[in-house]
Amino acid sequence: MTELVTFGETSLRLSPVGEERLETAEDVRMRVSGTESNVAVAASAMGADATWLSKLPDSPLGRRVQRTLHAHGVDTAISWAEAGRQGLQFAEQAPTPRADRLVQDRDRAAAASVTPGELPMDRIQRADATFVAGSTLSLSGDIVETAEAVLRAAGNGLVAMDLDFQPGLWSVEAARETLDGVFDAVDVLIANEDQAREIFDRTDEPRQFAHAIASKRSFDTVVITRSGRGALVCSDGVIHEQDGIEVDAVDPAGQHEAFTGAFLERVLSGAGASEALTYGVASATLARTIPGSMTTASREEVESLAADLDGGR
Amino acid sequence: MTELVTFGETSLRLSPVGEERLETAEDVRMRVSGTESNVAVAASAMGADATWLSKLPDSPLGRRVQRTLHAHGVDTAISWAEAGRQGLQFAEQAPTPRADRLVQDRDRAAAASVTPGELPMDRIQRADATFVAGSTLSLSGDIVETAEAVLRAAGNGLVAMDLDFQPGLWSVEAARETLDGVFDAVDVLIANEDQAREIFDRTDEPRQFAHAIASKRSFDTVVITRSGRGALVCSDGVIHEQDGIEVDAVDPAGQHEAFTGAFLERVLSGAGASEALTYGVASATLARTIPGSMTTASREEVESLAADLDGGR
Amino acid sequence: MTELVTFGETSLRLSPVGEERLETAEDVRMRVSGTESNVAVAASAMGADATWLSKLPDSPLGRRVQRTLHAHGVDTAISWAEAGRQGLQFAEQAPTPRADRLVQDRDRAAAASVTPGELPMDRIQRADATFVAGSTLSLSGDIVETAEAVLRAAGNGLVAMDLDFQPGLWSVEAARETLDGVFDAVDVLIANEDQAREIFDRTDEPRQFAHAIASKRSFDTVVITRSGRGALVCSDGVIHEQDGIEVDAVDPAGQHEAFTGAFLERVLSGAGASEALTYGVASATLARTIPGSMTTASREEVESLAADLDGGR
Amino acid sequence: MTELVTFGETSLRLSPVGEERLETAEDVRMRVSGTESNVAVAASAMGADATWLSKLPDSPLGRRVQRTLHAHGVDTAISWAEAGRQGLQFAEQAPTPRADRLVQDRDRAAAASVTPGELPMDRIQRADATFVAGSTLSLSGDIVETAEAVLRAAGNGLVAMDLDFQPGLWSVEAARETLDGVFDAVDVLIANEDQAREIFDRTDEPRQFAHAIASKRSFDTVVITRSGRGALVCSDGVIHEQDGIEVDAVDPAGQHEAFTGAFLERVLSGAGASEALTYGVASATLARTIPGSMTTASREEVESLAADLDGGR
Amino acid sequence: MTELVTFGETSLRLSPVGEERLETAEDVRMRVSGTESNVAVAASAMGADATWLSKLPDSPLGRRVQRTLHAHGVDTAISWAEAGRQGLQFAEQAPTPRADRLVQDRDRAAAASVTPGELPMDRIQRADATFVAGSTLSLSGDIVETAEAVLRAAGNGLVAMDLDFQPGLWSVEAARETLDGVFDAVDVLIANEDQAREIFDRTDEPRQFAHAIASKRSFDTVVITRSGRGALVCSDGVIHEQDGIEVDAVDPAGQHEAFTGAFLERVLSGAGASEALTYGVASATLARTIPGSMTTASREEVESLAADLDGGR
Amino acid sequence: MTELVTFGETSLRLSPVGEERLETAEDVRMRVSGTESNVAVAASAMGADATWLSKLPDSPLGRRVQRTLHAHGVDTAISWAEAGRQGLQFAEQAPTPRADRLVQDRDRAAAASVTPGELPMDRIQRADATFVAGSTLSLSGDIVETAEAVLRAAGNGLVAMDLDFQPGLWSVEAARETLDGVFDAVDVLIANEDQAREIFDRTDEPRQFAHAIASKRSFDTVVITRSGRGALVCSDGVIHEQDGIEVDAVDPAGQHEAFTGAFLERVLSGAGASEALTYGVASATLARTIPGSMTTASREEVESLAADLDGGR
Repeated sequence: MTELVTFGETSLRLSPVGEERLETAEDVRMRVSGTESNVAVAASAMGADATWLSKLPDSPLGRRVQRTLHAHGVDTAISWAEAGRQGLQFAEQAPTPRADRLVQDRDRAAAASVTPGELPMDRIQRADATFVAGSTLSLSGDIVETAEAVLRAAGNGLVAMDLDFQPGLWSVEAARETLDGVFDAVDVLIANEDQAREIFDRTDEPRQFAHAIASKRSFDTVVITRSGRGALVCSDGVIHEQDGIEVDAVDPAGQHEAFTGAFLERVLSGAGASEALTYGVASATLARTIPGSMTTASREEVESLAADLDGGR
Repeated sequence: MTELVTFGETSLRLSPVGEERLETAEDVRMRVSGTESNVAVAASAMGADATWLSKLPDSPLGRRVQRTLHAHGVDTAISWAEAGRQGLQFAEQAPTPRADRLVQDRDRAAAASVTPGELPMDRIQRADATFVAGSTLSLSGDIVETAEAVLRAAGNGLVAMDLDFQPGLWSVEAARETLDGVFDAVDVLIANEDQAREIFDRTDEPRQFAHAIASKRSFDTVVITRSGRGALVCSDGVIHEQDGIEVDAVDPAGQHEAFTGAFLERVLSGAGASEALTYGVASATLARTIPGSMTTASREEVESLAADLDGGR
Repeated sequence: MTELVTFGETSLRLSPVGEERLETAEDVRMRVSGTESNVAVAASAMGADATWLSKLPDSPLGRRVQRTLHAHGVDTAISWAEAGRQGLQFAEQAPTPRADRLVQDRDRAAAASVTPGELPMDRIQRADATFVAGSTLSLSGDIVETAEAVLRAAGNGLVAMDLDFQPGLWSVEAARETLDGVFDAVDVLIANEDQAREIFDRTDEPRQFAHAIASKRSFDTVVITRSGRGALVCSDGVIHEQDGIEVDAVDPAGQHEAFTGAFLERVLSGAGASEALTYGVASATLARTIPGSMTTASREEVESLAADLDGGR
Repeated sequence: MTELVTFGETSLRLSPVGEERLETAEDVRMRVSGTESNVAVAASAMGADATWLSKLPDSPLGRRVQRTLHAHGVDTAISWAEAGRQGLQFAEQAPTPRADRLVQDRDRAAAASVTPGELPMDRIQRADATFVAGSTLSLSGDIVETAEAVLRAAGNGLVAMDLDFQPGLWSVEAARETLDGVFDAVDVLIANEDQAREIFDRTDEPRQFAHAIASKRSFDTVVITRSGRGALVCSDGVIHEQDGIEVDAVDPAGQHEAFTGAFLERVLSGAGASEALTYGVASATLARTIPGSMTTASREEVESLAADLDGGR
Repeated sequence: MTELVTFGETSLRLSPVGEERLETAEDVRMRVSGTESNVAVAASAMGADATWLSKLPDSPLGRRVQRTLHAHGVDTAISWAEAGRQGLQFAEQAPTPRADRLVQDRDRAAAASVTPGELPMDRIQRADATFVAGSTLSLSGDIVETAEAVLRAAGNGLVAMDLDFQPGLWSVEAARETLDGVFDAVDVLIANEDQAREIFDRTDEPRQFAHAIASKRSFDTVVITRSGRGALVCSDGVIHEQDGIEVDAVDPAGQHEAFTGAFLERVLSGAGASEALTYGVASATLARTIPGSMTTASREEVESLAADLDGGR
Repeated sequence: MTELVTFGETSLRLSPVGEERLETAEDVRMRVSGTESNVAVAASAMGADATWLSKLPDSPLGRRVQRTLHAHGVDTAISWAEAGRQGLQFAEQAPTPRADRLVQDRDRAAAASVTPGELPMDRIQRADATFVAGSTLSLSGDIVETAEAVLRAAGNGLVAMDLDFQPGLWSVEAARETLDGVFDAVDVLIANEDQAREIFDRTDEPRQFAHAIASKRSFDTVVITRSGRGALVCSDGVIHEQDGIEVDAVDPAGQHEAFTGAFLERVLSGAGASEALTYGVASATLARTIPGSMTTASREEVESLAADLDGGR
C-alpha cells in the first residue's frame, strides 16, 4: 500500500439543516472539513495508507476532529495544544441564483501555531507522497514556516500541493507572495480553474495556462479541475483531458479534494496521468452526490464510474 | 412602562441535540445567550421596556443575535462591526454525576472592541435602570473602559450588576481587581451564591455574607441566588428570603438571568424587596422548565407561580 | 369477541416537539386524539371488536383521523361532510410547576352537525356496549340530540359514559344541565376524581361520593379514576379499590381512556368489577409511558402488569 | 426611512416535513404567513420601516404570530382579542404533476371581527404607503368595512392593494363585487397573472390587460407578476417588463409578496417603475430559494441579483 | 366493490434519512414494503376491497407490518408465526450517477415457511382477482408450493402475476425455471421492461416482445411498464400504449406496484385495457412523488391525472 | 500501553427515536453494539491499546461496524465474508413499569462461521489480555470452537470472560453446558448479578456466591456487577465492594461493558482489585448518562468520578 501524508488545518463545519439560513437556523449539522484531511480520506477510500498531521486543541471539539478522521480510515499524528481554538466554518449552501455563504472563523486556530518540532518529520521523510494545501499557509507566519519545512522534508517522495485559494482567508497578493516562496519544492500542483486564473492571472484556455504554469514554475504535473465540467492534466508537457458528467448535486463541498485524493492514489500506484485523471473525475463526481466534505465512495464505486467515463459514456 | 438598558456581549450557544456529546454530536442546536440580553428578555416578558446595547459583527451570525432579541420583544441598539468575531459557546449539558462542559469561544468577539462613542449614551442616561454583567468585563481592556463609562453615565437611574464570574473567562484574582474598580458605581449587586463565595472569599452563611458585602462595598441591595434553593436579598440592611421549589429541570441555562430580569422589573415598578424576590424566584423556576437561555414565561405565568410561592406552597 | 361501539368527536392534536412552547415551536407533532376513539383503541388492544362512529370533514385532515384509527385496529363508520372543520387541539405539556396549556379549537367541527340519520343505528342496537364521552355533548345542540339518540338506541347492551368535563369547552353549569338529561340512559359512569368533584359538587372521599352518585342517579356502576393514584369502582353498591403505581410519565394524555377501554373490555368479557378495575389501572399505567393519546400496550403487557398489581407489588 | 403600513389577517401555516402528505405526516412545520405581513417583511428586509396592523387572539398562538414579525424586523400594532380563533392553513407542497393542497382554516379568525376603532388610524394617516390584500376582504363583512376605512384613511400616502384571489376563501363573483367597491381608493394594484385573468375575465396578453385594467379602474400603476417568468408594470400608461430567471425552487410560498415588498420599498424611495420592477423580480426570485413565506434575503442580496438581472444576465 | 386478494412476503424497509449512506447514517426511516402489499394498497386507494394474505412473526416487527396495511385501508389475513424472522431490506437511494444500493435481508423470513393450510383458501376462491409477485417464489421451496396452490385455487377469478425479478434474491436461471412452472395458471402478466428482457431473453422492442410473450405462454394480457416512460399492454393480441410524463421523483420505490394496483382495479371494474393502462400510468406517476413504497394518491388524484394523460397533455 | 484483544460478534442496534415503540416508530436510530467491542471501546477510552477481532459481511452494514469502532479508537482485524448476514438487534427501551423489549436478529450472522484460520492468532498470543463474552458462544458450533481456540491461544496474557447470558439467544441449560467447557481457560470472570444467579443457580448473597464460584471453577478473579448498585470483586479469595450512585439514566445499554473495559485496563496497568473496581463502577456510571452502548467518557472523567467514589461521596 502506498503511503500518503497530508499536513494542514481542519475545521468543524456548521451548516443549517434543511435549506434554512444562518440568520434563522436553529438546527445545525456539525461536520469536519479540511482540505488536507478531505484529501487523505479520499485517498484512503481508494486504498492508500493515509495519515494526517496537525495540531488541535485538547478539547472535545479537537477530539471530535480526530474521531472523524479515524472513522474514515485515516491515521493521525496530532500535537495536542493547551492554547488555541478549534477552527470553525459556518457554511450556508444556497440554490442558484442565491449565493453560497461561508463565514470563516479559523483565526487563532491551534494549528496556526504548529512548529516542525511538533510533527513527526520522519513519517514525512518516509512517505511516498506529501500533500499540503495553499490555504493552510494563510493562517499564520508560523504555519508558513512549518509547511515549508514539511514540503522540503518530503523530498524523497512526491510533493503535491493544492492551490486552494480562499478569498475569505487572505488577499490574492498575499497568497501569490507566500506560495511563490514554496512552489519550487512542489512536484504536482492541483488547482481549481477559477482559482488558478486569479492567482496566476490568466485569461486564456485551461489547456494553455496549465502548460504555461507548469513551464514557468517547473512543476512536473499541473492539474486543473473544472467543477462539474471535468479536469485536465499537464504532465511532462502532455495534456490529458477528461469531461465531467452532469450530477444533481447533493453537496458540492469536498468534490475537489475527492478528485485530488483519488488522483494521487492512482499516481502513487503507478497509473498514468490519463488513468489518474479519470479516477479523479469519477471520485469528484461521486463526492457531489454525498453529504459532507469527506467522500465515502468506495474504491469499487469509483472504479465502476471511471470505467463508464472511460467508455465515453 | 419602566425602561431598562443592558449592555454586554451575547454569544451563539451551540448544544448537542438529544443528550449527545460534543465529541460525537452531528446535530447541534444553535441558540442565542448572553447574560445581559437574557436579563433584558426576562424583564421584557414581565412588561418592562428593555433595550440591549452592544457591538456585533456585520455577518449572518451577528444578525441572528439581533433577530432573536427582537423576537423576544427586546429593543436593540447595535454598533455593526466590520472586524471581530461572533462570540460562541459550545455547551454540553450532562445528567448528574457527569459534569456539564462549556467550551468558551468568545475571544476577539466584536463586542470586545466596543467604545463609548459606539453606544447611544443618551439612552443610558435616560433609562430607569442600567444593567451590566461582570463577565463582560473579562473580554478586553477596551470593554472594561466602556462598561465603566456605561455604569457612570447611568447615574440618574438604578445601576445593577451581576457578579457573573465564569472561570473559563478569567481568574478569580483578575475578576476581583477589575470589578473592585467599578463596584462603587453599582446600586444593586446580584450574585449566585457559589460565585459570591469565590470572589468575596466567604465561607459563612448567605444571610451573613450578603450583609457583609453590602456594608463593605456600600451596595444598597445585594441579592444572592441559590439555584433550585431560592434566593435572598439584603436591602437597606434587611434580609428577605424566598425558598425555591423542586423542578424537573429541562434546561437550567438562563435561570439566574430570569431571576434578575423579573426582580429588576418589579423593583423598577415600585415593588418592595420581598415581592421582587418572590417574583424573581418564580421567574427562575419557570426558566428551568424552558429550553434555551431566554425565558418565554409570560407575566401571567410568573405572577401565578409567585402567588403560589407567597402562599407558602 | 365482544363488540364495543363508541360515538364522538376526534381531533388532531398538535404538540411542540422537544419541550418547546407554542409561542416558539417550529416543529410540531400531529397526532389524533378523541376520548371515544382513544377508548375504542384501548379496548381493541385488549381484544375487543371496537368501532368508532362519527362525522369527519372530507379532507386530508379528516382522512388522517380515519387512517390512524384503522392502524390501531379500530373499525370506523364515518359520515363524510362537505362542510365543517376538522377539530384541532394545540397542546403544550409542561414540567411541574409550569402549567400545561391546551388551546381547544374544535368549534364548528364537522361532528358537531352529525344527525342520527348519518349514523348506522343498527350497529349500536346490536353492540354489546356503547360508549360516549360527556365532552362530546358540549359541541352543539345537534350533537346533544344525536348523542341522546345513540344512548337510547343502545338499550340492549351496556351503556357507558365518561363524564369527561373539559373546562375549555363549556361551563360547569352547562355541563350539569346537559348531562343530567341523559344520565338515566347510562349504566356505567366513569369519571376522573377532580371532574366528578366539580360536576357533582362533592368534597368528601371518593369512596363516599362514588356511592352517593351511583345511588342518586341509579347508575349500576360508577368508576372514579385518580390519575397516578389508582382507581375505585362502586358496583352494585360494593366498593373495589386499586392503588396506582409510580411512573416516570412520558405522556399522560390518554391514560384515562386507556383505563376505560380495558375496563369495559373486561366487563364485557364477563370479568368481575375487581378484575376489570385492576386491568384498567394496568392499562392506564402503561399508557402514561407511551407517547400520544392512543395506547399501544398489548393485551399481554396489560395482563402482565395487572398480575403484578394484583400480586400486591 | 420610508414608512409602510400593512393591514390584514395572518395565519399559522402548518406543512408536513420532508415531502410527506397531510394524511400521513406526523412531523409538521409550523410557520407564520399572511399576505400583508409577508409584504411588510420583504419591505423591511429592503430597509423600509414597516408596520403590520391587525387583531389576534390573546393566546400562545396569537403571540407566536407577533414574535415572528418582530424577529423579521416588522413593527406591530395588534388588538388582542378574547374571542376568535387563530387563523390556520394546512399546506402540502407537491412535486409536479401532483397538485399542491391547501386546507384553509381561517373561518372565525380573530381578525375577521376587527373594527376601525381597534386600529391606530393615525399611523395609517401618517404612513408613506398603506397595503391591503384582497383575500383579507373575504373573511367577514366586518373586515370589509374596516379594510375600506383603512384604505380611505390612507389617502395622503400611496395606497397599494394585492388582488390576492384565493379560491378556497370565496367565489370569483363575491371577490369581484367586494373588490369593485374599494378599487377607487387604490393607486397601485398588484396581481398574479392567473388571478388577474380570473377576476378581470381576460384572455389577452398581460401587456394588454394590464393597460386595460389600469385605464378602466383608474389605477396609477398595475403590476402583473408571472411566477418564475418575471413581471410587468403598467405605470402611467407605459409598460415595463422584466424577465424572470429559472430557479430550483425550495419553497414558492411568499414569492409574490417578496416582489411586492421590494417593489413598494423602491417606489417609496423614489425609484422609477423599471428599477422597482427589477428589484421586485430579484426579491421574488430569492424568496423561491428560501423556506417559508417570509423572505430573509437581505437588501445586499436583492441588489446584487437586481444588478445581474439588469445586466441582462 | 371488487375484491382483490394478494399473497406474498412483506418486509420492513430501512433507509437512511437525508441522503446519508448506509455506512454512516445514524437516522434511519423504517417503512413497510412488499410487492403484493404495495399492490393491495394501490388498488384499495382506487376503491377496491383489497386483502393481503401472509405469514408474519408474532413480534412487534410483524405487528408493525399489519398496522401499516390497516392504516392504508387493506384488510389482512395473517398466520402468526412463533419462529421465523421479519424480512428486512436496507435501501440506499442514490442520485445519478451513483448507483442505488439494496441489501436484501429476507432469508428465513416467517413467510418463507407458509403452507396452504395456514391461508384462508376460501377467500382466494371467492375473490374477483388474485395477485402474486414472482419474487415471492424465490424465498423457499415451501413458498413456491404455497404460491402455486394459491394461483390454482384462484381459478374462478382473474389471476395476475408480477414478474418482479430481483437479482439479489435469485439467479435468472432459477427464476426462469420456477416461474415457468406456474405461468400456465396466470391470466395477466405484468413486468418491468428490463426484467422482462432478462427473464424472457428479449432484445427487440417492447411492442414486439409483449406480443411474443403473450402468445408463447398463453397469457390473456401482458403489461410492460417502462418506469418514467409509460407502459404498454398487449391484451387479446392488441397493443395499447401510454406515454409517461417527466417527474422530479421524490421516491421511485413502489411506482410499479402503484401501476399494477390501479390497473387491476380498473380491469376488475370492467374498464378496457386502454383505460386501465392510463390509470396505471397516472397512479405510478403520482407514486414517484410520494415518499415510501405505498401510494397515498387518492382515486380523485389518479383520475385527474389520468384525464390529463388521456387529453394528451 | 497495555494491549487488549477482544473477539466476538457485533450487531447493528436499531432503536425507536423519542420513546416511540417498535410497532409505530418511523424514525429509528442505528447504532453499533457488541459486548466485546463495547469492552474494547471502554478500555481504549481509558488509554489501553484495544483491538477487536471478528468476521463481518462485506457489505455497507459490515463496513459501518468497522467505521464505528475506528471512530472510538479501537483497532480492528476483520475477516470479510461474502456470505452471512450482519447481526441486528431491535431494541425498545421502556420507562418502568413497562418492560424493555429486545428483538434479537443475529441468526446466521457472518461471525457465526468464523474459524481460527480467519483470525490473527499471533496478536492474541502477544496480547496482555484477551476478552470474550459468553453470548458469543451461543451463535453457532463453529464459533464455540473458534472462541475456545482464542481463549486457549491467549494463555500468556490474562484471559477474561463476561458471562453475558442473554435469554433470547439460548437456554440456561445450553449456556451452562457450553460455558463449562471453556471456563478452565479463564482467569477473570465478570458477570451481572442476575445472570450469575441463573447460570450458577445461586440464591445467596453476592459476596458468598462470588467466593463460591471462584473456588469451584478456579477463577483467579470473579467480578459481580449490580447495575446501579455498584459491584464487587472476589480476587484471590478476598472480597472488595464498591457502592454505586444514583443516576438519572439516559441509556443503560453498555454500562456493564463500560465497567469491564475500565476494570481490565486498570488491572493490566498494575492497579489492585479495589482500585480497578472503583474505576469500573465510575465508568459504568458515566456510561448510563451517555446515549448508545459505547462509552465516550474520557479517562479524565472516569478518574474524576472514581476519586469522588473513593472519597465516599
